[in-house]
Amino acid sequence: MARDRKPLRSDIAWSTATRIVVRGKDLPDELLGRVSFGDMAFLEVTGRLPTAAESVLFNAILVTLVEHGLTPSALAARLTYAGAPESLQAAVAAGLCGLGTVFVGSMEGAARMLYEALPRAQASAADAPVLDGLAHQVVAAYRARGAAIPGLGHPIHKPVDPRALRLFELAGANGLAGCYVELMKRIGAQAERAAGRALPINATGAIGAICCEFGFSDRIVRGFGVMARAVGLVAHLLEEGERPLALELWHRAEEEATAHVRPAEG
Amino acid sequence: MARDRKPLRSDIAWSTATRIVVRGKDLPDELLGRVSFGDMAFLEVTGRLPTAAESVLFNAILVTLVEHGLTPSALAARLTYAGAPESLQAAVAAGLCGLGTVFVGSMEGAARMLYEALPRAQASAADAPVLDGLAHQVVAAYRARGAAIPGLGHPIHKPVDPRALRLFELAGANGLAGCYVELMKRIGAQAERAAGRALPINATGAIGAICCEFGFSDRIVRGFGVMARAVGLVAHLLEEGERPLALELWHRAEEEATAHVRPAEG
Amino acid sequence: MARDRKPLRSDIAWSTATRIVVRGKDLPDELLGRVSFGDMAFLEVTGRLPTAAESVLFNAILVTLVEHGLTPSALAARLTYAGAPESLQAAVAAGLCGLGTVFVGSMEGAARMLYEALPRAQASAADAPVLDGLAHQVVAAYRARGAAIPGLGHPIHKPVDPRALRLFELAGANGLAGCYVELMKRIGAQAERAAGRALPINATGAIGAICCEFGFSDRIVRGFGVMARAVGLVAHLLEEGERPLALELWHRAEEEATAHVRPAEG
Amino acid sequence: MARDRKPLRSDIAWSTATRIVVRGKDLPDELLGRVSFGDMAFLEVTGRLPTAAESVLFNAILVTLVEHGLTPSALAARLTYAGAPESLQAAVAAGLCGLGTVFVGSMEGAARMLYEALPRAQASAADAPVLDGLAHQVVAAYRARGAAIPGLGHPIHKPVDPRALRLFELAGANGLAGCYVELMKRIGAQAERAAGRALPINATGAIGAICCEFGFSDRIVRGFGVMARAVGLVAHLLEEGERPLALELWHRAEEEATAHVRPAEG
Repeated sequence: MARDRKPLRSDIAWSTATRIVVRGKDLPDELLGRVSFGDMAFLEVTGRLPTAAESVLFNAILVTLVEHGLTPSALAARLTYAGAPESLQAAVAAGLCGLGTVFVGSMEGAARMLYEALPRAQASAADAPVLDGLAHQVVAAYRARGAAIPGLGHPIHKPVDPRALRLFELAGANGLAGCYVELMKRIGAQAERAAGRALPINATGAIGAICCEFGFSDRIVRGFGVMARAVGLVAHLLEEGERPLALELWHRAEEEATAHVRPAEG
Repeated sequence: MARDRKPLRSDIAWSTATRIVVRGKDLPDELLGRVSFGDMAFLEVTGRLPTAAESVLFNAILVTLVEHGLTPSALAARLTYAGAPESLQAAVAAGLCGLGTVFVGSMEGAARMLYEALPRAQASAADAPVLDGLAHQVVAAYRARGAAIPGLGHPIHKPVDPRALRLFELAGANGLAGCYVELMKRIGAQAERAAGRALPINATGAIGAICCEFGFSDRIVRGFGVMARAVGLVAHLLEEGERPLALELWHRAEEEATAHVRPAEG
Repeated sequence: MARDRKPLRSDIAWSTATRIVVRGKDLPDELLGRVSFGDMAFLEVTGRLPTAAESVLFNAILVTLVEHGLTPSALAARLTYAGAPESLQAAVAAGLCGLGTVFVGSMEGAARMLYEALPRAQASAADAPVLDGLAHQVVAAYRARGAAIPGLGHPIHKPVDPRALRLFELAGANGLAGCYVELMKRIGAQAERAAGRALPINATGAIGAICCEFGFSDRIVRGFGVMARAVGLVAHLLEEGERPLALELWHRAEEEATAHVRPAEG
Repeated sequence: MARDRKPLRSDIAWSTATRIVVRGKDLPDELLGRVSFGDMAFLEVTGRLPTAAESVLFNAILVTLVEHGLTPSALAARLTYAGAPESLQAAVAAGLCGLGTVFVGSMEGAARMLYEALPRAQASAADAPVLDGLAHQVVAAYRARGAAIPGLGHPIHKPVDPRALRLFELAGANGLAGCYVELMKRIGAQAERAAGRALPINATGAIGAICCEFGFSDRIVRGFGVMARAVGLVAHLLEEGERPLALELWHRAEEEATAHVRPAEG
């Protein structure tokens, strides 16, 4: 039990009576009114402000992830709000809890797949033949174990996901379409050929690849989905307050799901 | 049980095979690369894009709320992440759950206080004497029931909260310092005089007042804190992954808290 | 900043290499195999084991609260699980977040109402005429401000809530139907007379009253609902894994809610 | 988009104006006052009431999991409660979010390991030599890939975990110590021999093995930890309300963690 005491240390922010400093910048003087919310997110996560080109692309990633309609996540938030309208924060939290491996995790999966195929230290040396060879290996490996390639395919957006097209276009225009974007495209093309059907790179595949261009750890990629969706969930809760649908959904589900055992009432 | 079926309806977004539309705008064509994350948040919540002046101020509000150091919320997120590092989203959710009446709720309280004193329909007619009278009434009412006025006072930032100063400065420079900002300032001044001690308008007081200038419902004001803090929590979890402190905090707390009953081990 | 350091202290449990002690009892020797889960919950919360009579009633309270069908809370948990099946704990957490003022809070409200009308120190002196008078005052006060009395009325279980009847019966049979149960019954009867329609004491009203008989703080009453519902939510997630309904619910909601703006696809 | 509509169905519970039925049993008549909270949990999850022997063991599992002191989970709940005391349910939810792969997941891992080594269909034919062989294979496989065997070893409870001893004793006394308990013991013994150091079966290893004896899906095993800990977290929040430690923990952490950058105040 004679445990060594380890120091606690955080480098994100500090404050005194007169100063509030975040990532080395004075919050009132250097950030408020000068830095947008998206650029502040970049500063928080990386410790520096983005370049103009990085800002365009990083904001585009977050904007892509804000809103996806009445998702399971949005419905969970609305159903929670119906029971605890005094705790908007807990309703957002409930909605975020579902951003796991099924819906948002594929961004992380795509980034991890790309980093594993092409470690960052080797990225600068990857020319077209190398990328083709890596794409071939990746597709073959996933097909051999019957696994879906993260970031490819979409149940609705076919034959292309217009968000992925636009994100890659923005990456190119801002000098951030390097070997990871190229590798993702080649994986998509070879996977389509091998599968014999449309397998568009989807939004999460494009975002995963661009996150590799930024050099973000794959561990944090899911976090961009979480921060963006928090924004979207607040909007859903505002609408739920004005035009509720959660309780109707509940009553319908309850009635239908128990009709097979519930006796008719006389 | 012959329940009337009510329609389900949401006006936030829709999509088809080829289109994704959020708040009436085509996501790839009209939003990606054109709209910042902060402006997207404004669009989500209000249904329209902000003006340039509104954008500056709205982004400043969100930037203010991103990061407050190793708060209880950040610690809860880090402790959760230590147990479930595979669920970053749940760690953010845990952190958000604590943004209730004690820490973030005062923004909402300030907005509600201001709207109750000066309903929006009467705001245009409120001149200086009217505002002085309202401030007097508000301060008297809170003092009569011994309640703290939301948005005033700060345990650390004394005698002024530099964020509030800066936010009001930005509101003025962007034409958004109207009668609610004025009313908040007068409430602060009269409360200081009545209390006989420094009671600076704090960041949440300034934000509450500016939210009234925007015309935001007080119900949604807390949501701005939630979306901004989601960003900050992701940064804390990234740091926790690289420089952990949660487990050390746990061991220290456990050892100290049970030392009075735990027998020494021989 | 020269802050006084306050000690950290917890009296619930401690452990060493060879011992694990909860509420003063050796976990392996004195609790495992000897104490039921419900009695352990009583021990955790109160610091002592229940009497046999208390055990019957306390377990009955928890059993009442385990399962209420496909509630908004159960649906939120299932929708969360659909997105993050690797985090069962987060799906339960999402379901719990909605146990707020609308659905479970009325237990707490009933307990608070009863304690406010009849503080514990005066409970022993409350005879029938006193209770009648208190009930009259309570009903009159709620009616005067147009508020619903917590613990009365139910949308489905009319004219009586069979759970409340049974809980009161058990309270009587176990010597725990004292002045708070009496007061609740009188409030129910007087409220029905005043309203001119059926206003049965519902399960949360009965539980609120019985919690007052136990002397539980009204602050913790909601916690019984939370612990019991955690059990029920795990069962819903097990069923969701075997017979899923969350994704179907999502697709239906999305389709219907956006049909008014989504163009037909050609 | 011409989607097939799938039916919604749940078999857990139903209710009408006069009846509330859970798992085929009338809640007021057949469960309240007759069934303990732990047995109700068994009914919820399995669809039947436990035998007397099963009841002892199932309750012992849950009792084991209720309380582990000031864990990261308990601290997260307390820190959340400090910010949102009006949402006890959200504080419990925050605490549950951390019951992931690091702390509670090992129960699930142990059950999965045992089922994979010995599928249920083959369990009846597993005699001592077969079990020895399986244990040998399991230990060799984990050692070959340098992975920790789930359910073995404990940072504090050495050389034995008294909870595991007691749980196995109870399993034997109640006729539920079959081939999975045997296999777990053999894995533990062989792993100790191979490692050359104490590797006691811990509480989660014992629970994982006993869950296999019950025939529970490994997917649901974590759920027992979640339901039990919900009880413990409510007790921690009650104590936090009476003897708070969260804010002190926050102030200490904040001060220490930022001391390296925060200037001294003059």
